[in-house]
Amino acid sequence: MIATPGILTITTDFGIKDGYVASMKGVILGINPSVCLVDISHQIAPQDVMEAAFVLRSAVETFPEGTVHLAVVDPGVGTIRKPIALRFQNQFFVGPDNGLFSLLLSGSKPDGLVELTEPRFWRTPTPSPTFHGRDLFAPVAAHISKGLTLTATGKPLESLKTMHWALPISDERGIQGWVIHIDQFGNCITNITRSHIHRFNKDRLFKCYAGNAIINKMNETYANSDEGDATLLVNSSDFVEIAIHKGSAAQMLDIRKGTPVNLVFSDDKGT
Amino acid sequence: MIATPGILTITTDFGIKDGYVASMKGVILGINPSVCLVDISHQIAPQDVMEAAFVLRSAVETFPEGTVHLAVVDPGVGTIRKPIALRFQNQFFVGPDNGLFSLLLSGSKPDGLVELTEPRFWRTPTPSPTFHGRDLFAPVAAHISKGLTLTATGKPLESLKTMHWALPISDERGIQGWVIHIDQFGNCITNITRSHIHRFNKDRLFKCYAGNAIINKMNETYANSDEGDATLLVNSSDFVEIAIHKGSAAQMLDIRKGTPVNLVFSDDKGT
Amino acid sequence: MIATPGILTITTDFGIKDGYVASMKGVILGINPSVCLVDISHQIAPQDVMEAAFVLRSAVETFPEGTVHLAVVDPGVGTIRKPIALRFQNQFFVGPDNGLFSLLLSGSKPDGLVELTEPRFWRTPTPSPTFHGRDLFAPVAAHISKGLTLTATGKPLESLKTMHWALPISDERGIQGWVIHIDQFGNCITNITRSHIHRFNKDRLFKCYAGNAIINKMNETYANSDEGDATLLVNSSDFVEIAIHKGSAAQMLDIRKGTPVNLVFSDDKGT
Repeated sequence: MIATPGILTITTDFGIKDGYVASMKGVILGINPSVCLVDISHQIAPQDVMEAAFVLRSAVETFPEGTVHLAVVDPGVGTIRKPIALRFQNQFFVGPDNGLFSLLLSGSKPDGLVELTEPRFWRTPTPSPTFHGRDLFAPVAAHISKGLTLTATGKPLESLKTMHWALPISDERGIQGWVIHIDQFGNCITNITRSHIHRFNKDRLFKCYAGNAIINKMNETYANSDEGDATLLVNSSDFVEIAIHKGSAAQMLDIRKGTPVNLVFSDDKGT
Repeated sequence: MIATPGILTITTDFGIKDGYVASMKGVILGINPSVCLVDISHQIAPQDVMEAAFVLRSAVETFPEGTVHLAVVDPGVGTIRKPIALRFQNQFFVGPDNGLFSLLLSGSKPDGLVELTEPRFWRTPTPSPTFHGRDLFAPVAAHISKGLTLTATGKPLESLKTMHWALPISDERGIQGWVIHIDQFGNCITNITRSHIHRFNKDRLFKCYAGNAIINKMNETYANSDEGDATLLVNSSDFVEIAIHKGSAAQMLDIRKGTPVNLVFSDDKGT
Repeated sequence: MIATPGILTITTDFGIKDGYVASMKGVILGINPSVCLVDISHQIAPQDVMEAAFVLRSAVETFPEGTVHLAVVDPGVGTIRKPIALRFQNQFFVGPDNGLFSLLLSGSKPDGLVELTEPRFWRTPTPSPTFHGRDLFAPVAAHISKGLTLTATGKPLESLKTMHWALPISDERGIQGWVIHIDQFGNCITNITRSHIHRFNKDRLFKCYAGNAIINKMNETYANSDEGDATLLVNSSDFVEIAIHKGSAAQMLDIRKGTPVNLVFSDDKGT
């Protein structure tokens, strides 16, 4: 399995004001001039690995097999955290081993995993201690997008760092999760997925406590609820989110990233 | 007439922090791997159809024939507003039928207009009710960029939703319009175009009332006026705008989107 | 020497909300449909030529030979400042002659320099006085990316406008420079480079006065210092910067663009 279509996405916390992302693109185009570059996001909050993990998780599923995803949110740049590359569901991922890819894998093992230890695929054998994105990760990702195998880039790793985020706690009484992302519209995305909800009888009554609100409705679309009314819905990435039609749920309900979400069943018709 | 050069632009209100736009690009590249993707704007104010209509109108004119423009600013996503595609001046447009394209057409009829009713060109026959951009509009736009004809994508429509914005009111005494856009520099763009101005004798004196200012000058360039001085000028898209050299007209003159602009002739030398 | 790989970067102060950048891309793609477009930055502060010069300087070094860099930060648009194109280190640059390229050249002469005087390579012989980016610079850059020689685009120029920014003042007692850029993370980049530092004995003690801080440490990486501790480091572009590990040096030390940086040696072991 090699990266055939030559698509390479980039996710960073570098912002779009400085030329940092362009520096990486220059390196990549020098190695693979016919690559198709796609920005996923460069507005990840500085050093916020959880946000990067979430954005990556929700964006990559639509990309064709063989796509290479370069992700550089790297608070430990220059220290001992490992630079890695992995293959999962026939896509490739390159970045630091700091939990960036754990929401994406959500408990599964990657189909291939290496520590990047081969300097001949780097921009220089001594990467700038402050910019591994440009000197190490970008050139390796570019080589993989040209067909280099993972095994050529370094030595096999047994496991990568995984974080505890992805999984809410649930029993027959309810589910406890928390908000892992606030989107552009103020919608609050939780770590509760469609599969958690489906384990329960659809007709059960529930109350969901989040921020300053108690919500007891689940809708199919934003527009189905009245303006200003809070609702739960399963979003287009299969996460349960809290939304307000034509309003910002985050602002109006006083919800932040990390806010707990308690969904309890308010009847006795248990499983 | 099919979309030959394989250029596909995208305009949304999705912002650039989340991965929503990248999700659409993944879908598009899965269908047409050799497409050239161009972002027009993803910073349209949330659900602001007028702003999207303006940005689209001013950006598309430079693109080559056959370009496909995908525009998703869609407050009614998941409800009954129609998904459409149209051809106008040998370019293609795909998006919701909510007025997005009415400033672009400004009264003209499109050369082809269909309602998108063929699910075999969608990502899934049952698009996510909250993300038609990814599941319906993006794949259809990708197929059109590969050469699919409009007629194959759905059934012909007689007319599309048009808004009242584009046209100011005018008589021999003056013109009444309003501000439809504030740009990056604080320049205030009105819905009055060069053609409205040209109907009048060039030598006539006028006063233009807008916000807290009365302006009686029309200049050719920003730099021709003194710093801090308000002026009218016909901008590079042929719209009349209110500008302040090295300053923000919007801030300094207290002008917002929607502010009325009254241009009255202050002499008797009528047409 | 012509531009072979067909890469064209764009740097502007146009922002990403309006469609201005897309207008330029439409023009470029109409001339060179197979060009690879890369955004360096469109978030340069309005009309801030120094910031553009800095971002350009730090981003272009990674791009392959033959890349064309289009830069439009142009307070004097429509006035007599010259439109120019130049070649330097086998890359091409197109933009206004207002100092944009002086940090890049830092005293060297370009390998080719022309004033753009051939309207047949423009979008129109009479460019919009407010948008030379679209009507003059973009089409010329597109033609150069297709292989047009500099000499065909206009008439040779002897010299271009250079600014005094790049060079700090130094003697055997110390170096006086200033902050020329604040990045996304609040790191404060000075105009003092690795070469200025290397002229001095590595073991010398120093004090660096900047904002409200006195710094006497030079580190290799952000993570090597304690959280909240200010340090100097030579960054990945060889500029000395003032940084705080996991914090914003600009905010915490009250440093702005233009803040003086005085590095004085606090011992007697001179050169």
